[in-house]
Amino acid sequence: MALPVSPLAPTVVPTLPAIDGVRLATAAAGIRYKGRTDVLLAVLDKGTTAAGVFTTSKCPSAPVEWCRAKLKGGAARALVVNSGNANAFTGKNGNASTRLTGDIAAKAVGCKRDDVFLASTGVIGEPLDARKFDGVLATLADAATPDGWMDAAKAIMTTDTFPKVATATVKLGKAKVTINGIAKGSGMIAPDMATMLAFVFTDAPISAPALQALLKAGVTDSFNAVTVDGDTSTSDTLMMFATGAAAAHGAPKITKASDIRLKAFVKALQGLLADLAEQVARDGEGARKLIEIIVEGATTAASARKIAMSIANSPLVKTAVAGEDANWGRVVMAVGKAGQPADRDKLSISFNGIRVAKSGARDPSYDEKEVSKAMKNPTIQIKVALGLGKGRDRVLTCDLTKEYIAINGDYRS
Amino acid sequence: MALPVSPLAPTVVPTLPAIDGVRLATAAAGIRYKGRTDVLLAVLDKGTTAAGVFTTSKCPSAPVEWCRAKLKGGAARALVVNSGNANAFTGKNGNASTRLTGDIAAKAVGCKRDDVFLASTGVIGEPLDARKFDGVLATLADAATPDGWMDAAKAIMTTDTFPKVATATVKLGKAKVTINGIAKGSGMIAPDMATMLAFVFTDAPISAPALQALLKAGVTDSFNAVTVDGDTSTSDTLMMFATGAAAAHGAPKITKASDIRLKAFVKALQGLLADLAEQVARDGEGARKLIEIIVEGATTAASARKIAMSIANSPLVKTAVAGEDANWGRVVMAVGKAGQPADRDKLSISFNGIRVAKSGARDPSYDEKEVSKAMKNPTIQIKVALGLGKGRDRVLTCDLTKEYIAINGDYRS
Repeated sequence: MALPVSPLAPTVVPTLPAIDGVRLATAAAGIRYKGRTDVLLAVLDKGTTAAGVFTTSKCPSAPVEWCRAKLKGGAARALVVNSGNANAFTGKNGNASTRLTGDIAAKAVGCKRDDVFLASTGVIGEPLDARKFDGVLATLADAATPDGWMDAAKAIMTTDTFPKVATATVKLGKAKVTINGIAKGSGMIAPDMATMLAFVFTDAPISAPALQALLKAGVTDSFNAVTVDGDTSTSDTLMMFATGAAAAHGAPKITKASDIRLKAFVKALQGLLADLAEQVARDGEGARKLIEIIVEGATTAASARKIAMSIANSPLVKTAVAGEDANWGRVVMAVGKAGQPADRDKLSISFNGIRVAKSGARDPSYDEKEVSKAMKNPTIQIKVALGLGKGRDRVLTCDLTKEYIAINGDYRS
Repeated sequence: MALPVSPLAPTVVPTLPAIDGVRLATAAAGIRYKGRTDVLLAVLDKGTTAAGVFTTSKCPSAPVEWCRAKLKGGAARALVVNSGNANAFTGKNGNASTRLTGDIAAKAVGCKRDDVFLASTGVIGEPLDARKFDGVLATLADAATPDGWMDAAKAIMTTDTFPKVATATVKLGKAKVTINGIAKGSGMIAPDMATMLAFVFTDAPISAPALQALLKAGVTDSFNAVTVDGDTSTSDTLMMFATGAAAAHGAPKITKASDIRLKAFVKALQGLLADLAEQVARDGEGARKLIEIIVEGATTAASARKIAMSIANSPLVKTAVAGEDANWGRVVMAVGKAGQPADRDKLSISFNGIRVAKSGARDPSYDEKEVSKAMKNPTIQIKVALGLGKGRDRVLTCDLTKEYIAINGDYRS
């Protein structure tokens, strides 16, 4: 299915530099798609640490269960990602398939099976024939190079209309370290076609427990603050790998996430995660508008998050934005249904900085023409001020268009 | 906006009989629409008791707040319903408007203001000019007749494509009593156009507390088991009125909901509420398919409800059904995201009686052609067996189509 590139795609795409200790290669293993790559192998040097955050689904995919188990070791030597088949809801075969893939990758790379991490995205419920990786992964291990980040981002795409990459360079101690990230996802998840996957690599020497703490803290305002359709994949995976190669040119070895020397690194990492997450929202299936929702004045930050998510997941708010309609009544509805403290008569709402409602009623001063013009912008900010406390939050989503229905309702028929 | 009648509209529409103690009249008050009625007055005889169940929204409309306050008296003499303007999020003016409407209705009917109940549906955030009811309600009070149920159902419509009525006749003691109901709603709610309103009338002599208990119990598997888009109106209102007129021909006076003489009445009432609720789902905005979701084998009934609602509100499940795709992978996704106990490897899923998945994987015996044919049916049953316990639930929803987007995204542009 060749979809036109999202009009919200970033106009400037960075070139990702090499990261010492990471080599990449991609291939067309013929898992489902024709004429495109569908498997990525990342080979990681000895000493690489790993961290991961996964879907909250009660029915996770076999690769998610695999990664959770293998993370206990904290070490990584290889990452294998395939698109076209999610290896989810495949029963006992699913586990056999991850084991076989792990064996093939371990042999190809020359490492323990326990140091191999896996992710799969694509059709759910179809057995994944891991024998297709036999031979392919050995060839990839030989061919892997420090370049090829854009190829890697392309190989893991499903309904994505553009590859998602981000990079940052930052000082750790006196040494320069690099962080690269790639992601895919365009429904917040359509387990049959989409799923959010993201992989972040750095040469910073950071212990596995510290890396895990950094990653977990980083998702709150990035991947966990983005929604396309409120649906949660069985396969959502965010992993981070730190090769530690920067230690060779003086980067200090970090063992605690609270280490103050991490300050710049943490900021850069959070920025990179937020960048990738925003790209997912910008590639939301059928999206024409990026919607930023800011809730302030809630009783707590957690309450603000719930209200922001209620707005972000409301089909009525999302269709209104698609129709370029500053329909603040639907925003009130979404605030009201969140079940969080709210006082109708203290609510204010603005669209792209134009206040349309205040003190529980329409703002008499607003100019309908001005708002209509503002709604034509490809980026829409909806700000809700509750007037109750200091709780604040921000989430990103996209509009709900007929193309979403076409992508998710038409593709098999 | 003239929408084509839903293909899921009932083919047989009952004629509603008169109910002693209830008189109805409708008029075109010009609140928003041209060339159609938009106000309903129901005049209720002295001695009528009232019960109500309302939106859980934290930002309810002024009429909802009005009804909640007036229900404390337990008595009703008039119901005024208007379409075209929801009188929601209208600040202090909203309360002034309900008070003025109450005064006008009380004068027209000759009762206390506290015995008047109000409901409004339509645009949110626009002041409702209650002076438009002046004169109109007096004329309606004079013109009110025991007939006109279909006209009443039509006057309260917004984006509904067909009026919704239901009736039942049942024995209470040795006397025959009647229950009539009308409803409107087509988004589970689009506060700008839709909202679910339903009004039920009976001549059975039932005390207000007993009526309230019956109504509250009745919504669990009817109106609370239906969703169109997961959005909750600021104005959802279900009220029931019992005139008690059947006491004149021997119906016993009921003061407790647990009275065993109510057995047939309760069954009939629940059937009527379920019928009206199903009609709302059948008129879901843009709906082409009615979806019945049955979850069984959950740990508890409450858990089954949460899982059923997660499936019913999943945009990906709903678009798959629109595309006539038995996409059980998305059903697994929706089960998984519900956060309720579930064991992937015990799950079974069927579409219209054809099992497509069992024991955590695709059912090897199912025939894709047979399922494809079944998915063309206008009614789709999705049954999920969790295999954990005895919790069971059933909810209704509809598919998510491009027409939903058109109705909710295009209508102002």
